[in-house]
Amino acid sequence: MKFDLLYRLAEKFLEFPGVGRKTAERFAFHILNIDHSKVEELIDIIKLTKEKVKNCRICNNLTENEICSICCDNGRDSSVICVVEEPKDLIAIEKTGWFRGRYFVLLGSLSPLDGIGVDDIKINSLFEHVRSHPEIKEVIISTDADAEGESTAHYILKIIKPLNRKITRIGMGLPVGADLEFIDRNTLQEALKGRREL
Amino acid sequence: MKFDLLYRLAEKFLEFPGVGRKTAERFAFHILNIDHSKVEELIDIIKLTKEKVKNCRICNNLTENEICSICCDNGRDSSVICVVEEPKDLIAIEKTGWFRGRYFVLLGSLSPLDGIGVDDIKINSLFEHVRSHPEIKEVIISTDADAEGESTAHYILKIIKPLNRKITRIGMGLPVGADLEFIDRNTLQEALKGRREL
Repeated sequence: MKFDLLYRLAEKFLEFPGVGRKTAERFAFHILNIDHSKVEELIDIIKLTKEKVKNCRICNNLTENEICSICCDNGRDSSVICVVEEPKDLIAIEKTGWFRGRYFVLLGSLSPLDGIGVDDIKINSLFEHVRSHPEIKEVIISTDADAEGESTAHYILKIIKPLNRKITRIGMGLPVGADLEFIDRNTLQEALKGRREL
Repeated sequence: MKFDLLYRLAEKFLEFPGVGRKTAERFAFHILNIDHSKVEELIDIIKLTKEKVKNCRICNNLTENEICSICCDNGRDSSVICVVEEPKDLIAIEKTGWFRGRYFVLLGSLSPLDGIGVDDIKINSLFEHVRSHPEIKEVIISTDADAEGESTAHYILKIIKPLNRKITRIGMGLPVGADLEFIDRNTLQEALKGRREL
């Protein structure tokens, strides 16, 4: 593109997750074509989000206040916490509408290869959190099912165990609607191990 | 999402072309996760683009000045102009590196169903432009190959004809690399009509 600014704008959109050059160019043209007022709205909301959205002082969930809406909600079950890697994992679980306990967000997972150790995520705060909340009876470790999530789960198990609470790992198995013949070996193995009596 | 701002930001990204809810949410999280300085850069370049990029006074191409780089370029062939619907069509043709003439951008196409008539696009300016530039010997109509593009091409043909210039339509046929058996009937017909002697 000969148009320097438009090109630079497309370069910015290229940094968005999953966006290739064609899409980035379309986004740049989109910005060019929409009303000035729409662009102002977009910029305002970007600025506000960056300014106001932070991590909950208790569970690290995202919030516009000091404490998030889940930690504030007296209707939630304080006897069980679900440990997740990222706020978006929490959102995914909330969307199921099934879980009524509380959360703890680690803000990452252990990944020695990327130089991310115990001090880079909120794993020690999790220990402190569980220790100082005797009402927590069960800790559901819902980190990802990948290598980093698994090693994080193991580490959590190790440090929480002395606190004498029930510790569980989110179930692994066939995704709902899955065709068994297309499921990979490791998932099938986990699904068999995790079989339930009917 | 319980997070009002993040939700509102995702709603904004949902207005981007080809972006669904999942992707919009990923973009909102992307904004949340990148450095403040990166966000400032993004906002600055959006603002600058909206402020500075406008249409060329001669051909309606995009430019940061009064007259675009192509209209300013004395090395381009003034005897032939390529008429396109949008600046992005011009960019696509420029990328081929083959065309060395000049352009005229209509900023749209005739679409009576959407209420877009001759006064809503730059079709009368095109007539004026060709009339006042006797050096233009050929007008290549390169509007899209869809219904709107075709009717726009017909209208241009009708109004330019009295000016006694060579008028051509961009070729239609098989896309390079195409497998003939998968080409639709209309394209095949156009390809046969547009056969060239070897």
